[in-house]
Amino acid sequence: MSEELGLSVKKSEDFGKWYLEVLQKAEVVDTRYGIKGFLVYMPLGMHTIKEIYNLFENELEIKNHKPTLFPVVIPQSYLKKESEHIKGFEKEVFWITCAGKNKLTERMCLRPTSETAMYPMFSLWIRSHLQLPLKLYQSTAMYRYETKMTKPLMRGREFLWIEAHTAQRNWEDAENQIKEDMEVFKKVSTDNLCLPFILLKRPQWDKFPGAEDTYAFETLLPDGMSSQIGTTHNLGEKFAKVFNIKYTDNQKRKKHVNQTCYGIGIGKILGALISVHGDDRGLILPPVIAPVQIVIVPIYTANTKTKVMEKCGEILGKLEEKGFRIHLDDREQYTPGFKFHEWELKGVPLRIEIGPIDIEKHKITFVRRDFLERVTIDEVKLEEFVLETLDSIAFQLKKRANEMMLIQDAKDYKELKKKLKEGGFVRIPFCMKETCAKKLKKETTAEVRGTLFGKSEKAEGNCAICGNKANEMVYVAKAY
Amino acid sequence: MSEELGLSVKKSEDFGKWYLEVLQKAEVVDTRYGIKGFLVYMPLGMHTIKEIYNLFENELEIKNHKPTLFPVVIPQSYLKKESEHIKGFEKEVFWITCAGKNKLTERMCLRPTSETAMYPMFSLWIRSHLQLPLKLYQSTAMYRYETKMTKPLMRGREFLWIEAHTAQRNWEDAENQIKEDMEVFKKVSTDNLCLPFILLKRPQWDKFPGAEDTYAFETLLPDGMSSQIGTTHNLGEKFAKVFNIKYTDNQKRKKHVNQTCYGIGIGKILGALISVHGDDRGLILPPVIAPVQIVIVPIYTANTKTKVMEKCGEILGKLEEKGFRIHLDDREQYTPGFKFHEWELKGVPLRIEIGPIDIEKHKITFVRRDFLERVTIDEVKLEEFVLETLDSIAFQLKKRANEMMLIQDAKDYKELKKKLKEGGFVRIPFCMKETCAKKLKKETTAEVRGTLFGKSEKAEGNCAICGNKANEMVYVAKAY
Repeated sequence: MSEELGLSVKKSEDFGKWYLEVLQKAEVVDTRYGIKGFLVYMPLGMHTIKEIYNLFENELEIKNHKPTLFPVVIPQSYLKKESEHIKGFEKEVFWITCAGKNKLTERMCLRPTSETAMYPMFSLWIRSHLQLPLKLYQSTAMYRYETKMTKPLMRGREFLWIEAHTAQRNWEDAENQIKEDMEVFKKVSTDNLCLPFILLKRPQWDKFPGAEDTYAFETLLPDGMSSQIGTTHNLGEKFAKVFNIKYTDNQKRKKHVNQTCYGIGIGKILGALISVHGDDRGLILPPVIAPVQIVIVPIYTANTKTKVMEKCGEILGKLEEKGFRIHLDDREQYTPGFKFHEWELKGVPLRIEIGPIDIEKHKITFVRRDFLERVTIDEVKLEEFVLETLDSIAFQLKKRANEMMLIQDAKDYKELKKKLKEGGFVRIPFCMKETCAKKLKKETTAEVRGTLFGKSEKAEGNCAICGNKANEMVYVAKAY
Repeated sequence: MSEELGLSVKKSEDFGKWYLEVLQKAEVVDTRYGIKGFLVYMPLGMHTIKEIYNLFENELEIKNHKPTLFPVVIPQSYLKKESEHIKGFEKEVFWITCAGKNKLTERMCLRPTSETAMYPMFSLWIRSHLQLPLKLYQSTAMYRYETKMTKPLMRGREFLWIEAHTAQRNWEDAENQIKEDMEVFKKVSTDNLCLPFILLKRPQWDKFPGAEDTYAFETLLPDGMSSQIGTTHNLGEKFAKVFNIKYTDNQKRKKHVNQTCYGIGIGKILGALISVHGDDRGLILPPVIAPVQIVIVPIYTANTKTKVMEKCGEILGKLEEKGFRIHLDDREQYTPGFKFHEWELKGVPLRIEIGPIDIEKHKITFVRRDFLERVTIDEVKLEEFVLETLDSIAFQLKKRANEMMLIQDAKDYKELKKKLKEGGFVRIPFCMKETCAKKLKKETTAEVRGTLFGKSEKAEGNCAICGNKANEMVYVAKAY
């Protein structure tokens, strides 16, 4: 453990540097593994990842998704079946070509995503409309040979995610699945993790390889850049035709299924919430996923030690019984001040300080991580206060994050360029032509990220780029 | 879903065939993926796997292990560092040599186990005795290019497991870690999963590559063969010296850590418990891991449907509230008889049948999966009966499994050969020479699996193979 807990840079001064430093000093991940783009998840990072997985898995299971696991390797012949799909992925897959001293007769890749692993099995499994919708998910890592700069959790070559695949009776059911995917995301990301997002339908030239339509969950980072933390795709019948996935409907007709696939970027979500919620002291973890929600730091001298530790044990027991994740920091080798800093760095939402004076007065002193403010309450109010304060911290994190979720309007190119400098999304009327999007990207590095899902926004005025007739309102942002 | 639920063979007649058929018909795993030795875990299999993972992870965390995750790939230069280790694994690793269209400058393998991935990081992390013991685990898959016959869950090329690695101050602490590993295994395997095992110290010629001592958790399958469902190893200072993992003790002396690593074969345990507990109707899942513990099957005519379904909803609500995992099978297209067979096949421990006559009499009819016996009780006793019966089912599974755990003694080679034919373990006095073990294997296919851990068993008489002086009592068995 590093003895130097302080961060050398403020988040507002240099977000990029702050981010790398907080990941390292708070021991979330270690970037020093011997292969570029592959991370080591340390206990704090992995514990948090597990909590995020649990939240999404529970929500998916409520919606009747069932867990599965498909192999990490995909034979080349499977990957090649859907022509757009292989075109999209062939440049970025890792190939296994040997085993032991033998050359494999058919090479196989590490899964970049699992459509081509799963759908041959769907074809064997699906027979009747009574089996539909088939809704399966798996919690795994995916592998893509990123050639751009990697950034821990944000862009790498081994990525933790959930992928949920469904087979539906028709296009309409598939469209409804996209709505359900949004509900699942809202429940976990917004409600539990205090991380707002918008869901954008990507322009046709920016779809998932093989999809009819692609939708992306996007949130904003403190540098004003957009991060895609999830996607969901309506695949229509494209893969069903290639992989021969058919069912018999209730009038005995053979039909192709309609499919959807949904990717939840578990690692990216962790990266985003660290970025959005953290401050100059380190992490601030939303209470629902904090591996430790409350830490108790005893403050004593040789004379008062027994009394103080006894009280610590009592408080620990009381709160543990109520189901809080609580830790008593009884390490002898560190001062209370050191411990305060360490737990602040690690983002523990609530700290309790127990010393002899408080004990005599039947008081308890708390420090909440978001405001770093010290409050002393009557001991009898302990549980009520903890419950309310954890709720209040979640509320504050949400409020701050929503304030950062900057969405502005611009009518013309000049206004657009000006507002892009402030960061965040800029909404513009747009002609929906790829040439305009390319021009924008070239001149500003910003991208047309898509139209808002589920809420019709009529184009007002002319395209902010070319001045021709606008067709839709689109959201523009600089993006990772 | 297959319409034919019956198994074509009795477990006692042809265990191997029964096993493959039950995996397929109960939809545990699918073996038809396009690469040999790689399984698809279907919802019932994956749900059960998740429950087994949870049990072990909770137990490890109680013992203060922390979760981590290391990359699935290991650079060749890391894997090569420990000479015995690379010798043991080089014939069975998968090699990634290309990414996209590029040849990699250094090839990397899929983890066959993670010592060489983790220990370079341990060397960066560990500085002081205050950080020891360091206890980390990860829940992942490992990859080994098996050239022997594969058997789903028992032997494959992608294997689900937990690996727990520790760094300790000295040899004695490492030995104590082995004891703790046994406690963890006992708690979950024996107590929760009703699966007995013995822990054997492997002979010196049959150790994990790079270990000082290897211990194996072994259980018996219905064909009398032994299956190694876990291992734990005392690595001594071997890896610490190679990877330079040192700490400063409380007198400021630099020392190498002592290490242990512990592998829990989650998939193998699922395979073993299916084999041991199942019967001619299909699976019998221990209540603690059954994804559905209780299934309700309604029995009605057009006239009585409303009343029956109302009662089903009521019972469902009552038991759900008490925390049982319960499912109401309200599918219209199947008869109650079909449903009975299907849930029996899938190993649901307890079935409730609800029909109009029982409702009038305020009775409830149950069928427990182990004895397949039908019991009718007063409705007021519902919860009490369910709780007791699930406990009783676990008790019966344990009892049956213990009876199958055949361990016999033999004094000479003739007796040994005779008893090996009955299956199970045979305990013999042994000279501890590899030549005798080789002779035994060649002549009988049985192996010297090791000496019992934690209980001194003095050798009585002469070696059962060569007749020379015996040194230890060892356990011999045919093994997968």
